[in-house]
Amino acid sequence: MTVPQAKESTVDVLIIGAGPAGLMAANALAKAGVHVRIVDQRPAKVAAGQADGIQPRVIEVLQSYGLADRLLREGNQMHLATFYNPGPDGGIERTGRAPDVTAPSARWPFYVTLHQGSIEAMFLDSMAPEGVTVERPVIPTLLEVSKDESVLKDPQSHAVKVVLKYLDPEQGQADIEIVRAKYVLGADGAHSWVRKALGIAMEGEQTNYIWGVVDIIPDTDFPDIRTRTSIHSLNGSCMIVPREGDMVRLYLQLMDADVVNPETGRVDRDKMGPEKLMKVASKTFHPYSIRAEEYHWWTLYIIGQRVAAQYSAHERVFISGDACHTHSPKAGQGMNASINDSHNLAWKIAHVVRGWSDMSILKTYELERRKFAQDLINFDKMFAAMFSSKPRTAQNKDGVTHEEFIAAFQGGFTTGVGIHYSPSVLVNADHQAHASKLVIGERVLPQTFIRAADMRPYEIQDLLPADTRYKVLVFAGDTSDAAQLARVRTLAAAVGSPSGFFKTYGGADVFDILTISSASKEKVNYTDVPPIFRSHWSKVLLDDTEMYPRTDAGGGYEKYGIDKTEGAVVVVRPDQYVGIVAPFEKLDDITDYFAAFMKVAAQTVL
Amino acid sequence: MTVPQAKESTVDVLIIGAGPAGLMAANALAKAGVHVRIVDQRPAKVAAGQADGIQPRVIEVLQSYGLADRLLREGNQMHLATFYNPGPDGGIERTGRAPDVTAPSARWPFYVTLHQGSIEAMFLDSMAPEGVTVERPVIPTLLEVSKDESVLKDPQSHAVKVVLKYLDPEQGQADIEIVRAKYVLGADGAHSWVRKALGIAMEGEQTNYIWGVVDIIPDTDFPDIRTRTSIHSLNGSCMIVPREGDMVRLYLQLMDADVVNPETGRVDRDKMGPEKLMKVASKTFHPYSIRAEEYHWWTLYIIGQRVAAQYSAHERVFISGDACHTHSPKAGQGMNASINDSHNLAWKIAHVVRGWSDMSILKTYELERRKFAQDLINFDKMFAAMFSSKPRTAQNKDGVTHEEFIAAFQGGFTTGVGIHYSPSVLVNADHQAHASKLVIGERVLPQTFIRAADMRPYEIQDLLPADTRYKVLVFAGDTSDAAQLARVRTLAAAVGSPSGFFKTYGGADVFDILTISSASKEKVNYTDVPPIFRSHWSKVLLDDTEMYPRTDAGGGYEKYGIDKTEGAVVVVRPDQYVGIVAPFEKLDDITDYFAAFMKVAAQTVL
Repeated sequence: MTVPQAKESTVDVLIIGAGPAGLMAANALAKAGVHVRIVDQRPAKVAAGQADGIQPRVIEVLQSYGLADRLLREGNQMHLATFYNPGPDGGIERTGRAPDVTAPSARWPFYVTLHQGSIEAMFLDSMAPEGVTVERPVIPTLLEVSKDESVLKDPQSHAVKVVLKYLDPEQGQADIEIVRAKYVLGADGAHSWVRKALGIAMEGEQTNYIWGVVDIIPDTDFPDIRTRTSIHSLNGSCMIVPREGDMVRLYLQLMDADVVNPETGRVDRDKMGPEKLMKVASKTFHPYSIRAEEYHWWTLYIIGQRVAAQYSAHERVFISGDACHTHSPKAGQGMNASINDSHNLAWKIAHVVRGWSDMSILKTYELERRKFAQDLINFDKMFAAMFSSKPRTAQNKDGVTHEEFIAAFQGGFTTGVGIHYSPSVLVNADHQAHASKLVIGERVLPQTFIRAADMRPYEIQDLLPADTRYKVLVFAGDTSDAAQLARVRTLAAAVGSPSGFFKTYGGADVFDILTISSASKEKVNYTDVPPIFRSHWSKVLLDDTEMYPRTDAGGGYEKYGIDKTEGAVVVVRPDQYVGIVAPFEKLDDITDYFAAFMKVAAQTVL
Repeated sequence: MTVPQAKESTVDVLIIGAGPAGLMAANALAKAGVHVRIVDQRPAKVAAGQADGIQPRVIEVLQSYGLADRLLREGNQMHLATFYNPGPDGGIERTGRAPDVTAPSARWPFYVTLHQGSIEAMFLDSMAPEGVTVERPVIPTLLEVSKDESVLKDPQSHAVKVVLKYLDPEQGQADIEIVRAKYVLGADGAHSWVRKALGIAMEGEQTNYIWGVVDIIPDTDFPDIRTRTSIHSLNGSCMIVPREGDMVRLYLQLMDADVVNPETGRVDRDKMGPEKLMKVASKTFHPYSIRAEEYHWWTLYIIGQRVAAQYSAHERVFISGDACHTHSPKAGQGMNASINDSHNLAWKIAHVVRGWSDMSILKTYELERRKFAQDLINFDKMFAAMFSSKPRTAQNKDGVTHEEFIAAFQGGFTTGVGIHYSPSVLVNADHQAHASKLVIGERVLPQTFIRAADMRPYEIQDLLPADTRYKVLVFAGDTSDAAQLARVRTLAAAVGSPSGFFKTYGGADVFDILTISSASKEKVNYTDVPPIFRSHWSKVLLDDTEMYPRTDAGGGYEKYGIDKTEGAVVVVRPDQYVGIVAPFEKLDDITDYFAAFMKVAAQTVL
């Protein structure tokens, strides 16, 4: 009998951990044609419970990968937030209803709740045609980044060595594999092995609030059971999160006496269980009744808010998702932050692996996402404290009022639509005034334009898919006006010149140019637009109402703060965030923007 | 060697012909659990050309079968109609643009163009999980309806004998099968064998207008090539129909000299071809150029408008689609009329086969659909004549003006949303005044309501799927008002009584009850609604704006002409057409409506 030799292999990107953060990255990289592998220590994907809330911005992100249809088909939508407080007789009573999402720019003004296993299945099914599946159960046992500067400087070097151990190897196969990867992503959760291997500390602290969570199909006379309800009762707080089908999740505030072992002073899971959680719920819901026949999932947690001190080692090994930040689940941010982390990182790695960009863009991942995590933690501290506080009553004048709580609830942080990335090589706000309301460093505001050739309405975000290309939006002004059209032609000549960014940095492989005319729908001819600004008849849009108005098309120039006589060129990053804006006469600033991090293309597809 | 014996079999419904009419019926019956078979003489489904325009109403119909998503994903949308007429120099010039669909109630205000093969694939994929596939190539050789009155009166008798011949039988298999069917549908096209076997005449006449059709990917400087364009030129007329991908269909008016054989006086297909059609197009398009590298499909046709004298024999054998009516393709009605025919018929057959209804409802098929076909033919005569006429010029003062043409074009007939079925056992307009704008005999007007339990907006049509159930819409008024709620409870008691229609005619198997409250979103409790009016938390709707208004929800009572203090009960047929309306106090009229054609259920699912 021979002992099988350890396998050796190379890969562009190795992802460790197949939760939402890892799968999001794996799918994005697989779709981008990057050679990617993903391993996980669990023998199968999660079947119940865990994270389940998808924020409005993440619906937009999933849509950019073609995944929102399925999410919306399978998930539950939360449109309504309801608030209960103690009534005169001590039982709870409704003190108000409010929209669950008030951000005016949210394209989908609601949260979606869907079991984490269904979210993971969505990614798995999407990347299967690319030949990528999760290898499991597999754990990493060694992680080494090259110490050789020349190796680290070469973006194509396999600078990271990882030893993988197969926990359930096939008969006769080695249980060890040595993988040499160009880049590694640790998406291995709050107890991240990768983070620990890199010696990255978590900064922050634990609170004393202990909560229980239980998933049930309720039998109740409570009239708001299908809405996101925040209950502040004299018996503790509760948040109701309705889910797919008839399922409902209850977050229940627990008293130390319920769960803490008096001898050890630590939370004792054995002291609690779903039946006991339902007893807590019964007290909280009084005078309404709530019962359940069975419990689909339950857990306990202590709120802690912490952020990793670094998000990467040498821009070769990255961490994302829960490996970088932990916080309370009730603000509904866990899975969202994870998906947004990986969405931010994946296209940057793809550009570097393809040789389009130099490695400097990888530094923006930590810059952009760690800042976000810190903001999130600050919000979460405030929100969690307010939720865990007693309600204001005649006896407790320091308690939280309905109005204070609702103000925090609707603060707008949780929708994700306002995420703002600071200036960097990828975010240049010098000419913000030329598109004053299309904030550079934020995602492109949803807006319906009509397609000039056939007057079909399109949401602009649907023309900005996550296909790894930069989208160049030429706000051309009134192309049915001869003088304006002459300006546009001059601009087109500059963009299309041999020294222009388009030909220099990769042409149509790298850039998708869309033209947005402000001509009227009666007068526009899409054929007037210079060829480089309309590679296909579908590439010319119009800022006008529909022929027979049904959508909110029209008014896009005003919404974006762009002058119709002046026009503007807007560069949108592959992740839908605005990178740079320039007036026609400052086209060189766009060329300089790309020159700072892109490599001159050997060949250009026009 | 033994000669294989002819097979003998029985089936509920045998469909002959697997074009859109046959497949629509097969899918609907298969989904309804009816034992159905479908045969076709062609060895494979169509691969190119043929009918391709889907009207707004048919998008709604397909949505009710869960098929609209795919249609909208794959198809092209026509939002814009453009009109060209001769300019001062004799070449064509644009004289106007208009919405392609102006019907305010169209839920999808555009036409979809998609290759007939893709439409057929949609039905094939939908019914495959039900175990129904097209048997081909197979032709019928004999059709006999029983002459025994007692057999004909028994809805469950296999009263029709059909002999099928397999054109390509498997080795050792008989090439003949004797099928005894309860019902037969002839969906075998304009030259219908079934129609001829029944001896049904086509009434109407042929015109002299000869047209050519060609599908191309155009190379052109014509700025309206992606819109539905009607060209009246001095060199003949043309209609452009843009299609999926970059394909465009041209309908070109031909001169007799182009296509008629002078010796025989008949159209000679050999005289014409796609290259010649493109030469005709070049003259028509002048001063614009139009060329094509290749031709995907082409044909010639002479406009004829004819309707079958009968649509059925003894309500045992039916014909639908082109077997019943032929007309010009340019009004875009062929496939639409076919789909609507089968949509009208399928649920009625399902109800009779299940023993829910007696056979009298089958008579309404001819009543409803033949009347429609006659209206269609009258419209088509006018429209085709106008399209084939010369444009009005200084020299031709009898020609058609742009204004005359556009008035006919936008007449609203072609969208299908205004199809009206006359009074019958299924259409009772006695109490029309109680829902004055929800026209009895027409499809339910699209309207967004919000779901009371979670405030999620729903288009009402999406709650009226083609699941063969009657939908009972209880417009309950303000259920947060105690006096009104008392009236609703009285109504609920009557509906739920042992002699009420609900329990008498099949309960939840047959009826889906939805309640629409006019309470405000701040005050409503869905739990107030009596249990029989909310079999699930999702069954209570609200006529109010959204929490954070994004859709056009709200104002439904006004739109439907229903008084909020009085309320109304609206019965919607399984095909989304309004059957009867009654005020609360006239509930007996609804019971009488069902009593006229329904059978008392042996068992009732509540």
